Amino acid sequence: MWGIILQDGKEISLARQIFLSLKERILKGQISQGEALPSTRELAKGLGVSRNTVCEAYDMLWTEGFIVSRQGAPSRVADGLQIQSVQQSEKAQDTDKIPPAILFDFKTGQPDLSLFPWQTWNKIVSDAAGSLSARQFEYSGPKGYEPLCEEIALWLLRSRSMEVSPKDIFITSGATQALHLLVDILHKEGHVFALENPSHPGIRTVISDKGYPLHWMPVDSNGADITSLRGRNISAVYVTPSHQFPLGGILPATRRAALIRMAIEKDFYVIEDDYDSEFRYGGSPITPIYSMNSSHVIYVGTFSKTVFPALRLGFAVLPKTLQAKWRHYRNYMDVQNPILEQAALAEFLRRRKMDKHVQRMRHVYDEKRNTLLKSLEMTFGDSVYPWGDASGLHVALQFPELEFGSKFALSCKSAGIRVSLLAQYCASRNDHKDKLLLGYGHLNSMQIQEGIKVLHQVIMNGAYINSQLN
Amino acid sequence: MWGIILQDGKEISLARQIFLSLKERILKGQISQGEALPSTRELAKGLGVSRNTVCEAYDMLWTEGFIVSRQGAPSRVADGLQIQSVQQSEKAQDTDKIPPAILFDFKTGQPDLSLFPWQTWNKIVSDAAGSLSARQFEYSGPKGYEPLCEEIALWLLRSRSMEVSPKDIFITSGATQALHLLVDILHKEGHVFALENPSHPGIRTVISDKGYPLHWMPVDSNGADITSLRGRNISAVYVTPSHQFPLGGILPATRRAALIRMAIEKDFYVIEDDYDSEFRYGGSPITPIYSMNSSHVIYVGTFSKTVFPALRLGFAVLPKTLQAKWRHYRNYMDVQNPILEQAALAEFLRRRKMDKHVQRMRHVYDEKRNTLLKSLEMTFGDSVYPWGDASGLHVALQFPELEFGSKFALSCKSAGIRVSLLAQYCASRNDHKDKLLLGYGHLNSMQIQEGIKVLHQVIMNGAYINSQLN
Repeated sequence: MWGIILQDGKEISLARQIFLSLKERILKGQISQGEALPSTRELAKGLGVSRNTVCEAYDMLWTEGFIVSRQGAPSRVADGLQIQSVQQSEKAQDTDKIPPAILFDFKTGQPDLSLFPWQTWNKIVSDAAGSLSARQFEYSGPKGYEPLCEEIALWLLRSRSMEVSPKDIFITSGATQALHLLVDILHKEGHVFALENPSHPGIRTVISDKGYPLHWMPVDSNGADITSLRGRNISAVYVTPSHQFPLGGILPATRRAALIRMAIEKDFYVIEDDYDSEFRYGGSPITPIYSMNSSHVIYVGTFSKTVFPALRLGFAVLPKTLQAKWRHYRNYMDVQNPILEQAALAEFLRRRKMDKHVQRMRHVYDEKRNTLLKSLEMTFGDSVYPWGDASGLHVALQFPELEFGSKFALSCKSAGIRVSLLAQYCASRNDHKDKLLLGYGHLNSMQIQEGIKVLHQVIMNGAYINSQLN
Repeated sequence: MWGIILQDGKEISLARQIFLSLKERILKGQISQGEALPSTRELAKGLGVSRNTVCEAYDMLWTEGFIVSRQGAPSRVADGLQIQSVQQSEKAQDTDKIPPAILFDFKTGQPDLSLFPWQTWNKIVSDAAGSLSARQFEYSGPKGYEPLCEEIALWLLRSRSMEVSPKDIFITSGATQALHLLVDILHKEGHVFALENPSHPGIRTVISDKGYPLHWMPVDSNGADITSLRGRNISAVYVTPSHQFPLGGILPATRRAALIRMAIEKDFYVIEDDYDSEFRYGGSPITPIYSMNSSHVIYVGTFSKTVFPALRLGFAVLPKTLQAKWRHYRNYMDVQNPILEQAALAEFLRRRKMDKHVQRMRHVYDEKRNTLLKSLEMTFGDSVYPWGDASGLHVALQFPELEFGSKFALSCKSAGIRVSLLAQYCASRNDHKDKLLLGYGHLNSMQIQEGIKVLHQVIMNGAYINSQLN
């Protein structure tokens, strides 16, 4: 909430953490002069701390003249505090960013677009634009372009033996939108949303922004431990069973069956996010949970990784019970997707261009993964243990004798490399402190090899293995 | 795989199951004529059966003439097999609904797409697809494509003398999405959202769905009566000042100034929805409230009427104070718009194709409006009074001696005509019962003239003026 990240067990008190965080944002102009701070009650609720803690933080801000307050009115940011104007600071930020340029950016979830068949795609786009009739550019409803739904059903069958009726497929502008809609549709008062710990920060933020409570399921090398769900009132359970994000486990059939039994018995829905199972390197594709049960499982897919992110197309496979509600919410959220991308993607699938592209990229990403793993082995020997390396565009690395914190992140930045701390994906910043997350899908082998060398340097300089890098 | 579902232990052999399944899909048109079937090896692998089984199934298809095959080439679906085309089966569903077909559909907000310059647009789309670099198809952030923001700023200046910095323009997938985001961003606990009565049901639904309280401002021929806001705690005020929807009034400067003073004093935001001011037939365009004040006014625009609805592009002009929050919410709602339409629209604006199209359509819609008003006068004489006829794609009609209710709506449907009861846009179904709403933008003059005749018949048959039509 409000960009404030609290860390339990830190030596700095929670009130002071709130104070410092707000002060920094005010000075940077991220909270503008005159802007009202949330009420103490509101902020306390949002951060899950006592109201006294927030009052204490606000008192600090007031004493130092950062905020002004009048009786009965919200506290506001005082005038003339911003050191640089917004325009200036925008520029300044840009130049600030550049000196230590990020030469090796291991950010996650980025496909390699240099190998996408652009010529074919552009031809298909042109054809699609010309072949649609004027009527198809009118409003056409929140479900999506029917020929695309049909092609997606066939694609799911071809690519992962998943049988779905096109009638149950609802087009979205990506997985994020599907989750955003589902959270509103599935929320029940006093019930929790269960997430994997760790998991993608997006889903957590969507739920927290709406003020709905969370429950964290521990994750091991086999994915989510669902026993922690017992005895809880659950709105929905969000899982990544084919390739746990980011640790990479595959949820075993026994856990899947138990989860479904629980969902049926307690009448909640399982949200299955299948964000990258196309890119599995060994063996056949993992069967979705959806194939075991379609009444209590919502399957969410995306084309951001297989086609490209700015396509903004994904889909949800919805049980009949949720379809009317979905239509209503989508209609009043953003009505529908644009038609052009939908028509083009349908044609891309129909002509089997997708199959060809995914097959090619599976080899390409497999090679990149091998390069990364070899580089790691050469550089770090056996002091690093890779998790979740059997599919996808990223790998989690465990350095059993290290702990990574914000100081380490800063050192990386100065050295021109970006890697993610796995703790940022966790319920608490103290979880999984010995792990890093590296996305490699968009990098070439030189970048991967050099990047790993830089990572090694940063670790050696800062820590000399065995010590802590906080 | 390929929609084939095999059941072990069934009395029908696996080969025959494959055959029947493919046959059914071919007959339904789900596999098109001329389409290549997968190779026997591929399908056998996909279905997990022996290649002989698939060969047997293909032989059955061949024997009965469902597929043709030549040595060395894949088997293809024979021509002329499809019993019902997809279109036909859709029609069959439609006829269930239709018995009383809607021949004259006066629904609102529908532009005439038959006159859109499709050839120019398709050329621009193809050019845009080819000119974007691979990097531009990555994630590019929630603000929108910068060249489009710049072109929109220029367009606002050209079309309505509105000065805006491109930095304050945030691209959306239409006005609905802007409102959806704003309602969350602007909500304050215990404060109301103020709406015009009547107004578009969309905005009311967005607010009610979230459980936020509403306050209704009465509307007269000059738009919203803002005195009713006094003494209330307000989250935001939503207005359509250039052309009140649906009654058509223009909010006078005194009311505008008073609204802004109130907004500044009580620190709330005014949401200005400028949904159709391009289509004003007499005099110069109405200046937006935004031009009087940019710190407390959020200007929302859309290209659904000027270009086409399935483009899914609109924008919001945001005060600096709201931009960080907007970025956050948009990021976790659906991340960003697709890039292709943004690039194409930027080019459509840059080449002044928009100016030309809007100018042309202003004349076209003006003529349609004249046809409608003349038809009304000829048919109803002075027993009908048109509201809001100076701009836009719709007109509200007052029949001072009548009251319209659900029985009337049913009679219209049976007679093959759709008009809206204005009461459906109101806080209560008892408000504005003497008014109807007719959209005419998408209809030709014959449809308009005949439609008004049918409307007249329905009214005469059901009510004989002076009585009630509930």
